[in-house]
Amino acid sequence: FIWQLEMKRWFVMLLIGMTTAAIAAGVDICIDVLAGSKYSLVASYFAHKVDDISILIPFFLWMGIDVVFVFLAAMLVVYGEPVAAGSGIPQIKCYLNGVLVPHVVRFKTLLCKVIGIIFAVSGGLAVGKEGPMIHAGSVVAAGVSQGKSTTFRRDLKIFRDFRTDHEKRDFVSGGAAAGVAAAFGAPIGGVLFSLEEGASFWNQSLTWRIFFASMTCSFTLNVLLSYYNGNPWSLSSPGLINFGEFTGIDYHGYEILLFLLMGVIGVCWAAFNAINYKITVFRMKYVYRGSMCVMEVIVIAILTVSLSFLSIYLGKDCQPVTQYVENPLQLFCGDGEYSASASLFFSTPEESVKTLFHAREGSISFLTLLPFCVIYFLLATLTYGLSIPSGLFIPCLLAGAAWGRLFGMFLHYLSPTPEVFSACGLYALIGAAAQLGGVIRMTISLTVILMEATHNITYGLPLMLVLITAKWVGDIFNHGLYDIHIELHSVPLLHWGPPPVSSHIKASDVMNHPVVTLNTIENVGRLMDILLKNDHNGFPVVDPYDETRILGGTFRGLIIRSQLSVLLKNKAFTSWPTSNEPRKRIQLDDFRNEYPRFTEIADISITDRERECSIDLRPFMNPSPYSVSKEASLPRMFRLFRALGLRHLVVTDGHNRVVGIVTRKDLARYRYNSHRNRGLEELPIVSI
Amino acid sequence: FIWQLEMKRWFVMLLIGMTTAAIAAGVDICIDVLAGSKYSLVASYFAHKVDDISILIPFFLWMGIDVVFVFLAAMLVVYGEPVAAGSGIPQIKCYLNGVLVPHVVRFKTLLCKVIGIIFAVSGGLAVGKEGPMIHAGSVVAAGVSQGKSTTFRRDLKIFRDFRTDHEKRDFVSGGAAAGVAAAFGAPIGGVLFSLEEGASFWNQSLTWRIFFASMTCSFTLNVLLSYYNGNPWSLSSPGLINFGEFTGIDYHGYEILLFLLMGVIGVCWAAFNAINYKITVFRMKYVYRGSMCVMEVIVIAILTVSLSFLSIYLGKDCQPVTQYVENPLQLFCGDGEYSASASLFFSTPEESVKTLFHAREGSISFLTLLPFCVIYFLLATLTYGLSIPSGLFIPCLLAGAAWGRLFGMFLHYLSPTPEVFSACGLYALIGAAAQLGGVIRMTISLTVILMEATHNITYGLPLMLVLITAKWVGDIFNHGLYDIHIELHSVPLLHWGPPPVSSHIKASDVMNHPVVTLNTIENVGRLMDILLKNDHNGFPVVDPYDETRILGGTFRGLIIRSQLSVLLKNKAFTSWPTSNEPRKRIQLDDFRNEYPRFTEIADISITDRERECSIDLRPFMNPSPYSVSKEASLPRMFRLFRALGLRHLVVTDGHNRVVGIVTRKDLARYRYNSHRNRGLEELPIVSI
Repeated sequence: FIWQLEMKRWFVMLLIGMTTAAIAAGVDICIDVLAGSKYSLVASYFAHKVDDISILIPFFLWMGIDVVFVFLAAMLVVYGEPVAAGSGIPQIKCYLNGVLVPHVVRFKTLLCKVIGIIFAVSGGLAVGKEGPMIHAGSVVAAGVSQGKSTTFRRDLKIFRDFRTDHEKRDFVSGGAAAGVAAAFGAPIGGVLFSLEEGASFWNQSLTWRIFFASMTCSFTLNVLLSYYNGNPWSLSSPGLINFGEFTGIDYHGYEILLFLLMGVIGVCWAAFNAINYKITVFRMKYVYRGSMCVMEVIVIAILTVSLSFLSIYLGKDCQPVTQYVENPLQLFCGDGEYSASASLFFSTPEESVKTLFHAREGSISFLTLLPFCVIYFLLATLTYGLSIPSGLFIPCLLAGAAWGRLFGMFLHYLSPTPEVFSACGLYALIGAAAQLGGVIRMTISLTVILMEATHNITYGLPLMLVLITAKWVGDIFNHGLYDIHIELHSVPLLHWGPPPVSSHIKASDVMNHPVVTLNTIENVGRLMDILLKNDHNGFPVVDPYDETRILGGTFRGLIIRSQLSVLLKNKAFTSWPTSNEPRKRIQLDDFRNEYPRFTEIADISITDRERECSIDLRPFMNPSPYSVSKEASLPRMFRLFRALGLRHLVVTDGHNRVVGIVTRKDLARYRYNSHRNRGLEELPIVSI
Repeated sequence: FIWQLEMKRWFVMLLIGMTTAAIAAGVDICIDVLAGSKYSLVASYFAHKVDDISILIPFFLWMGIDVVFVFLAAMLVVYGEPVAAGSGIPQIKCYLNGVLVPHVVRFKTLLCKVIGIIFAVSGGLAVGKEGPMIHAGSVVAAGVSQGKSTTFRRDLKIFRDFRTDHEKRDFVSGGAAAGVAAAFGAPIGGVLFSLEEGASFWNQSLTWRIFFASMTCSFTLNVLLSYYNGNPWSLSSPGLINFGEFTGIDYHGYEILLFLLMGVIGVCWAAFNAINYKITVFRMKYVYRGSMCVMEVIVIAILTVSLSFLSIYLGKDCQPVTQYVENPLQLFCGDGEYSASASLFFSTPEESVKTLFHAREGSISFLTLLPFCVIYFLLATLTYGLSIPSGLFIPCLLAGAAWGRLFGMFLHYLSPTPEVFSACGLYALIGAAAQLGGVIRMTISLTVILMEATHNITYGLPLMLVLITAKWVGDIFNHGLYDIHIELHSVPLLHWGPPPVSSHIKASDVMNHPVVTLNTIENVGRLMDILLKNDHNGFPVVDPYDETRILGGTFRGLIIRSQLSVLLKNKAFTSWPTSNEPRKRIQLDDFRNEYPRFTEIADISITDRERECSIDLRPFMNPSPYSVSKEASLPRMFRLFRALGLRHLVVTDGHNRVVGIVTRKDLARYRYNSHRNRGLEELPIVSI
């Protein structure tokens, strides 16, 4: 039986990997077709230009297509499933952390997210399709592992063993890893992403399965995309974004100092986060009605097209066409020339990133790159947080690659001989890493993702150093963008470690008390009243007081709300008040069939006669839950919560009597503030 | 203060990475020089051969040099530091798991290991230098982080904050990762190795620092070796073993089934482990005297040389020299030809591995490869466990690459057109992975190490699949070789998860009882007697009974032996029997200065008058240690031990009174036996 269960887990991971890859390939191909048709249609009108008025034709055509596309994307999100907005990484981060975010892993969310991102990217906004892939992988994992869908009201009755929060979360971490693997062709990075965001306890066999899911996903995507590109077994597309080959670009040891300097130029990333924070607060206050959200998206789309068009029109950076240039775009340039600005503004962001990494020295001029850098930075800041699915990776990479390349060009301009500094493309890569690290502040997984995406192990140290400095410099000013968005929604996220200088805080300071306890054999009426009056999720079960009232209240176990709901719904209490035998025996499947949406207590009808009956909670409660003494320090409780994935921790006195209960919220509230007053602060936390 | 400590930790990791790299580079260069001189000297005598007698000159010269080299290696281990034998990975695995293996991280061990491995590899034995690098990195980490050395009796008085088991172990995991990074040029693999072997709780900032250490190490080694090879910034040697460039070798989808088949041919790996197990048991019984160990090493060295020489002599596999052959060795062949057998038998194992991976199709004949495969397999089985430092990776890679290449050659022989199957070199790689996975049964880290060593992400899935099947097939027959050696030494190692079918075992079944408890205010005489009579390491502290003898025995805290030793040594008790004030205030530094070797209780002199005094343990004990009720199941306790790195867990009854204590040993004893009776078995465990 154990082996059967284990094989099922592997099989589910295989399905997750392959399904995620199929979705990723579908998204990639759709965007390729839609955006490709759009750009070639618009470009064909550019070619026919004769006078000043007719150049407005491609402009309005371009704008019209983009507006239609982003309108569709916004409608799907606003009226379809609002949680599909954004990159989805903050939501998945919360989910893996143990917070239940509503709707985040539903099939409908997946649908809105996937179709939405196709239109958002094809619509030319400053968004990437990579972040949403991670969310998509997670939804796939949650759906496949449960073998049933609430949206479709179908239950395949397979994988019923996996219908617990714990198992489902394990699969979702595999799905997130598969998503990363699909997005960047980085299976190891995917595993580390899942560990970094979700894991608290190192689980060897789970990690191994996660790795399997992400490897399968990357491989399947590789086969599908190779097949689409006409060369089935070339296996050259392990991910959606491909940084291209960096072979032959070496760096000198002393350039590491320059890379560090690029990491230290941290002001702009903190600025990105700060500006986006302000915009998000503004949006939360004023732009909340559906129609307003859609309007806002359209306005930004028009702004994006206009700025792009103006940049191409004004910055006439015409370069002679050579054999090294792929798909040269003539646009406003003379014959035999192509527009270098268009290679940045008039293509999908992925293509622009590759151009910045690999374009020959001197093929993009200073005057093209500087406005591009500024414009894209502003557009990215405005775009993240709109009511459309929008990945953050590509905009950051693109803005970073632009200023990185500028930095490199400046160095080449200064140096007497060209060999002193490496190629500008390498500086673009480092700039992209610095920008990305400065905005999202991920560390280990990001280094590995970028290493895998460049296929070059010698870039490991520079990438790592630049990400470390970017994070450290950025952390002086504010938090990572995902964390900012999580905080704005007051989610009780537990970070990796307890906040510093918190060891003086004791369990008795943070616990909720007086605590509502249940007796081992409880009266049904009292139980109903307690459940209806309190919205707590976990209840300590205690021995009732004996006649002498000396011993008693002793901690015996913990029972959670959903279990009580199933017990009451199935009338698992005695048939009449004086009986000892329950009317119905409850099986494990009774709990599994209800998962994950249990009946509300208010919807359970209990007659007055039933209220007199009693229920023995001992067979159902957790008989040895974790507990701490009231002297226990905050870091100690924090480690228990994180290491063991707890949701409730009962606090007892020296004689094992319940004195309080601690939940995630109580711990998530404390945070060390390194920006303002350098002390512990209490955050506002809502319960979800 | 927090930031200062954090910066110190990063600085120590930097030192660890750089020192490990320097040692690795030193070892590599020494072996290069010694083995290079040896082979060129012997080869020069081959060239002068005129008749049958004179070919014995190079044979005896070769044997003589090898015997001297391995004699030196064996002397260092047998009379220097016996724990330096073997690869050191089992020892480091135990250390990271929380078991204190004596002498394993001492400077003397490092010295014997490093010099020993140079001579063992130069002496032509079937050993690799990669495993020992991991041990070397760990010792470096332990030494650097403590800022003092017991061997040198020096205390630099820096990094005193790091003088706890916990901090030291964190640095050792960084050192082990740096060792892997140095050995294979696999910094990510190094991090995963440390996590796989050591981590239980995912610690973000520690993982990040480990990554830094391994990245620094790989980079520094790269610079040092590039400099040694005359091209300072080519940065082409990230590790000691380099698999060479596999570019352009693609595989077809259907070949994955063949790779799986290679994974299933699992009998020989289980055989490797089984044979080595028998040999090790034999050695433990009969070969334990120092001189016998040295003799044994010399015998194996003579056997190795004789078999190699015979293979070259008898298997006259002469191939014409073309421009693709590096360093062709003529030996017994005619002019314009070179000996293909010599390219395998007459070079360092690393070179032979590269030959098998990259030699042109047909350049090594079937009749050379088959005997090589068999001979090397046998030599590797005999060699691992000798009293010399000996890595297991390279022998496994080499034996596996040999049969993998054979398998590939067989397929090519069968196929009508050459394009049906990939290059033999790829089959050699897969065979190497299968063999390695089958012998050591590591999973995640091994996949990543091999992926990084091949620099090719598309090999990820085949490598992973082959490692999974190798592990699964192998696990049917026996355990991984490291685990076999750990079990033979009866070490209480806690694996990643609790054994299956163990949830019926309760704390009251496994706990030690009656348990020796101390009172909160304890009489010095009684304390001394208890400490001298028992060798326990941890003592629960309880409230003394009150007059009514009803309440009392209540659990208050836990104190460990080393703390009591410091307290008694510093006479931290009252000046006279009726006083309440301790004679001396104990500071944190009093504990740190003693670390890690505390005074034995028997060496502390306590006068009869002092025996009458009392000591208040409350300020020193851990006031809120983890405890479980006696109903707690084995898996629950197991998770607490693993997740929180516990050494003692106090078992209490419903009223918080101490009823027993559980240690690692009590949990490590239970193991699910999947090979024989498929049930739980109890292992013999010794305390260390």
